[in-house]
Amino acid sequence: MAQSPQLKGYSAATATKQQQLEKQFDQHLEAANIGQTIKSLSAYPHHLGSAQGKRVAEAVLQKFKSYGWDAKLETYHVLFPTPKTRQLELIGPTKYTAKLQEQAFPEDVTSGQAGQLPTYNAWGADGDVTAELVFVNYGLPDDYEQLAKLGIDVKGKIVIAKYGRSWRGIKPKVAYEHGAIGCIIYSDPKDDGFYQGDVYPKGPFKNDQTVQRGSVMDMVIYPGDPLTPGTASTLKAKRLERSEATTILKIPVLPISYGDALPLLSALEGPVVPAEWRGALPITYRTGPGAAKVHLKVESNWDIVPAYNVIATMKGSTYPDQWVIRGNHHDAWVNGADDPISGLAAQLEEAKAIGQLAKAGFRPKRTLVYCAWDGEEPSLLGSTEWVEDHAEELRQKAVAYINSDGNSRGFLQAGGSHALEQFMSEISKDVRDPQTGVSIFERKRAKDAVNAGAAKTQAAILKKDTLTLSALGTGSDYSAFLQHLAVPTLNLGFGGEDEGGDYHSIYDSYDDYVRFKDGTFVYGVALAQTAGRAVLRLANAEVLPFDFSNLGQTVGKYVEEVKALTAQLKEKHSAENALINSKSYQLAADPKLSWIEPTAKPEVPAIDFNALEAAVKSLQQSAANLNSYLNSKPATDKKAIARVNQALFQAERSLLIPEGLPKRTWYKHSIYAPGFYTGYGVKTLPGVREAIEQNNWTEADAQLQTATKRINALAQTLDQITQAK
Amino acid sequence: MAQSPQLKGYSAATATKQQQLEKQFDQHLEAANIGQTIKSLSAYPHHLGSAQGKRVAEAVLQKFKSYGWDAKLETYHVLFPTPKTRQLELIGPTKYTAKLQEQAFPEDVTSGQAGQLPTYNAWGADGDVTAELVFVNYGLPDDYEQLAKLGIDVKGKIVIAKYGRSWRGIKPKVAYEHGAIGCIIYSDPKDDGFYQGDVYPKGPFKNDQTVQRGSVMDMVIYPGDPLTPGTASTLKAKRLERSEATTILKIPVLPISYGDALPLLSALEGPVVPAEWRGALPITYRTGPGAAKVHLKVESNWDIVPAYNVIATMKGSTYPDQWVIRGNHHDAWVNGADDPISGLAAQLEEAKAIGQLAKAGFRPKRTLVYCAWDGEEPSLLGSTEWVEDHAEELRQKAVAYINSDGNSRGFLQAGGSHALEQFMSEISKDVRDPQTGVSIFERKRAKDAVNAGAAKTQAAILKKDTLTLSALGTGSDYSAFLQHLAVPTLNLGFGGEDEGGDYHSIYDSYDDYVRFKDGTFVYGVALAQTAGRAVLRLANAEVLPFDFSNLGQTVGKYVEEVKALTAQLKEKHSAENALINSKSYQLAADPKLSWIEPTAKPEVPAIDFNALEAAVKSLQQSAANLNSYLNSKPATDKKAIARVNQALFQAERSLLIPEGLPKRTWYKHSIYAPGFYTGYGVKTLPGVREAIEQNNWTEADAQLQTATKRINALAQTLDQITQAK
Repeated sequence: MAQSPQLKGYSAATATKQQQLEKQFDQHLEAANIGQTIKSLSAYPHHLGSAQGKRVAEAVLQKFKSYGWDAKLETYHVLFPTPKTRQLELIGPTKYTAKLQEQAFPEDVTSGQAGQLPTYNAWGADGDVTAELVFVNYGLPDDYEQLAKLGIDVKGKIVIAKYGRSWRGIKPKVAYEHGAIGCIIYSDPKDDGFYQGDVYPKGPFKNDQTVQRGSVMDMVIYPGDPLTPGTASTLKAKRLERSEATTILKIPVLPISYGDALPLLSALEGPVVPAEWRGALPITYRTGPGAAKVHLKVESNWDIVPAYNVIATMKGSTYPDQWVIRGNHHDAWVNGADDPISGLAAQLEEAKAIGQLAKAGFRPKRTLVYCAWDGEEPSLLGSTEWVEDHAEELRQKAVAYINSDGNSRGFLQAGGSHALEQFMSEISKDVRDPQTGVSIFERKRAKDAVNAGAAKTQAAILKKDTLTLSALGTGSDYSAFLQHLAVPTLNLGFGGEDEGGDYHSIYDSYDDYVRFKDGTFVYGVALAQTAGRAVLRLANAEVLPFDFSNLGQTVGKYVEEVKALTAQLKEKHSAENALINSKSYQLAADPKLSWIEPTAKPEVPAIDFNALEAAVKSLQQSAANLNSYLNSKPATDKKAIARVNQALFQAERSLLIPEGLPKRTWYKHSIYAPGFYTGYGVKTLPGVREAIEQNNWTEADAQLQTATKRINALAQTLDQITQAK
Repeated sequence: MAQSPQLKGYSAATATKQQQLEKQFDQHLEAANIGQTIKSLSAYPHHLGSAQGKRVAEAVLQKFKSYGWDAKLETYHVLFPTPKTRQLELIGPTKYTAKLQEQAFPEDVTSGQAGQLPTYNAWGADGDVTAELVFVNYGLPDDYEQLAKLGIDVKGKIVIAKYGRSWRGIKPKVAYEHGAIGCIIYSDPKDDGFYQGDVYPKGPFKNDQTVQRGSVMDMVIYPGDPLTPGTASTLKAKRLERSEATTILKIPVLPISYGDALPLLSALEGPVVPAEWRGALPITYRTGPGAAKVHLKVESNWDIVPAYNVIATMKGSTYPDQWVIRGNHHDAWVNGADDPISGLAAQLEEAKAIGQLAKAGFRPKRTLVYCAWDGEEPSLLGSTEWVEDHAEELRQKAVAYINSDGNSRGFLQAGGSHALEQFMSEISKDVRDPQTGVSIFERKRAKDAVNAGAAKTQAAILKKDTLTLSALGTGSDYSAFLQHLAVPTLNLGFGGEDEGGDYHSIYDSYDDYVRFKDGTFVYGVALAQTAGRAVLRLANAEVLPFDFSNLGQTVGKYVEEVKALTAQLKEKHSAENALINSKSYQLAADPKLSWIEPTAKPEVPAIDFNALEAAVKSLQQSAANLNSYLNSKPATDKKAIARVNQALFQAERSLLIPEGLPKRTWYKHSIYAPGFYTGYGVKTLPGVREAIEQNNWTEADAQLQTATKRINALAQTLDQITQAK
């Protein structure tokens, strides 16, 4: 089929029609209405399991219904810990009792409301521990290596780590792996506080009592209800004992403000921390341990609560069993005007506009499924349980999943399956940036070019005329779709222009949003235009707009990266061992300071990437063949096109590893996964890359074979499309 | 002459004799005596022009005499501003009067003495100014570029800059060039204060009232007495009017503590500064200007005072007209136990040991000249005036100048003329590190390897079996020798293991030195062993141990650097212009913030380095020929050896540019100069490099020709040695 140059998957004639449809769609999007939605849905604290949470789910359900959609609640019953006891005291050398309480301000009318979840980290263990305190920087594996060099051990200690650099759940997990018995996490003002700008309520940054709540579930093992891994947590589901759930932590965890952290950190003794570890508090940052001793007590109510997913559908006219799925969560830690309501409001605006189009006679070719998830905050509970519940159907029917979450002023942030890169590139050129009037593609490119450090990179960015999709780790509701089922996925949003410290605090409110984020809601409209186009174009495409050439190119880059990583490790380990063998560490060390000789690094063996590289080449060839085939197919051959469409959206499933990734079988995508030690941060070619990073050469070999097999499988799947009679 | 493999310039027989001499020399060096000297010479504040300064000069004179040297004072009469009025107030939006006073502590017995120079910067203009305040980071040209992008201008404003990243005098000079009418310099706790460790007197770092004094003379134009550039400031010398002296600043300058800076910085409005600009004070750093207004009043007593250089000589037996010169200053800003007395005490210990050797019959072949300089702190006054006074004689007789200054625990720091690199490499392998017992070469290499970031660099450092000399900018008394006369120079010292904030404060005291620096004075012994060996080996060498191959290699590297710099600038400017032309800056900018389009950068033309590269090649060839020649010369040919020696130590003078560097004719060395915008920091191939850095392509071409000419001249000089009959 000769495709329109601007609209992949459409012929010239249908492209024009689609563009008219999108114009009408845009006319129904109203910034003021988005603002109204944000205000009303964030009016009260509405976390999972709360009465207000249920009220929000029902309000969303009513909206979908009022827009003409077929909508219902799908309810699961999930474990959800909420605070019973939270206690933190410095008991020596001086005394201090942590406040653990954010302050209400008249400038923020919802900040003093009843029903707020106290500041806590969900999924930490119940515990009552007293021990010396050790500061562990961001609490990542490298930080403990650095501590070991200084002769500092956290065994039997309570650690205090800064928020940042990783998903928060990694910090207590790594602390536990190193023998710590408790974990405190605080927001340093260097990362989020006066160091960045004026603090709340004068400015948007964290004041000295603001706290970031959040889940610390070990969700890089599996997300969703810890008691029902891989299956839906229906009322009658078979559940694990809590003690059997590998994603619930083994030590107590508590998040605190920098005001509460200051007396603790000030009391630390021991070596001064490395320069990169130091924050912005006016103290000498030291590692501990020593006289500074703390008492930490945390207990939760471990209740099973209902999670209300709102599911709205509009049946497709031509392919009712091909689903284009769109989602955003509705639960918040507190009021959540930004996270998640700003994204949800845009999504509801899309649904409203599509409803209005439908009233005027429009019918999508494929079925639209609009979802508002519950329980995202405590680790993607609602979406994961729904996907696990509907897994079989989704394997058959899910064309793509398009996610959003918090949204604000700034630049397009788009991640997802690279087979949709070309498709998103087209959309990004068709949506105007509300502030500058150029396309959101152009504005993002300008920003990327300006921010790139090196002149070479700047020039390369300016020359590139297509959007680059980032790869997805985790952190929002796309995980189960992409990483468990390999449903082609997009995650869309705007941001980067207004930073602030409201995230997961009582100040993520309408007042904060209007003052410091997208005050005129024009980026809500931009998100609705962007995600709405993605939905409508996928829904109506004659041939689904997947392009596996982009995926082939991107995977080729990932292979280059893991090769380079291996070479770097080889060089690094051999240089490190040369330093050790030449006694350089010993000679360079200050004899007045305590110091531990680093242990020798394993030598990196030769690793054979040939088969993997060959697989990528054959994927690239198969993708090119498929593109030629699709361009030459006569548009009249309806039956062939139907067969091709079905094959196209299911092709990415070939990348699924049936047995899953090592140590976490729930994650099955061979190209994208959250990092085992980064959390939200993605690891591409995760099996191979993480085995190399962890010096596990046997596993690296096995994972190389697995990845090679999956990439070859995708190439064959594509070949089957072109070679079918 | 077949040279000893361990001792360049010596035959096997004389090498053994010299090694025995050095062993005897070592036996006379006593750590306790060095400690005594430090204690006695730092007992009172003894700045230039003070009664105690004169007492120190006389004490040093007596020591030399008592060691058996021929010693005298050589006195010059130099301008030296001392504080008359110092006033700094915040006058709006709140009021604050700066304390400008360091605190005395019982832990530091000299900290409360009379006679201390108040905290000030010498050579700032007299002035009484009131204006809005602007924070300019470190106050360097790049910082003003960044401010311009934010739309901030300092015209008619008072600037506040952090100490660090450049010599302090650059900050007010650049401020003045940008139209500022006053300059405040403070030590941020991030660079020197609680951020680094415990503050004085608990630890060594700056407390909230400690201030760094120091000269801000524009000494990259010329150092020494501003009224007598290029000539000695004798009593009857012709002097410029003060207003004619180009090295005296045009605006008032005052250094303050971070305690005094805090209220000023807290009052600033305007944009939040870039992340790299922020210090460790618990505030949001902003640029100003705005409501924060300060009143700054500074007046000096502009007196002409005597500078007492102590000059001690021991006549050479074979070559009395070949001088090996050794120096360290004796004046301090206050007590100066570290700076300069720790270095001076080591030098006096060398003189003592050599005196004892002389009493036992030793006589150096060449004349030794040991110097203790006055007025180094206010910008190398004593040494510069002495060099200018003796210029003709030094051109004829100066074999080398070996400098030291403050000295403490740690690693060898050696810089200088690269023709002496091989020579210093041998010495560094013959001196033991007092703490580890390995050679000071080996310990330094270990530290360099451990500190190198990249694995490749680490491996390369471990493999290199010779010392690398750093190139010299300015900051101590070698400047006039090296950069005005091209006398081959070494600057030696130990340090890097104990940092602290005593520099130029009242806490640079014996108490501080013993607690936080070289408490057992063993690195004083190590310095005496190192510098003493340099002196004795140069003094007794049969053939002077210059090796111009090292210089040739090093200059080759500098040429590669300036070529790479040119290529980088070309790439950078073209990328920057592409960003401007594509409107990327405009599109990326936050429309809510004020923002200025950067101006287009000049395109970098093609620059022809061929002639310069050819010159370096011919220098390398001539140096290789010379080395072969020297190795084959029979040791018996005394007359030829005498001729060669004379030519060898004068060879570096071929690198002198008769007309000097652009904008600063006093600096004449074509390879080494302090940076016009870095101060202490060296610029190698300065004429070429700075012209390129400043986008002055006409000057770059001219300077390329000049450098080419000088390097060819050196090659010819070396050829004349080998080709003489």
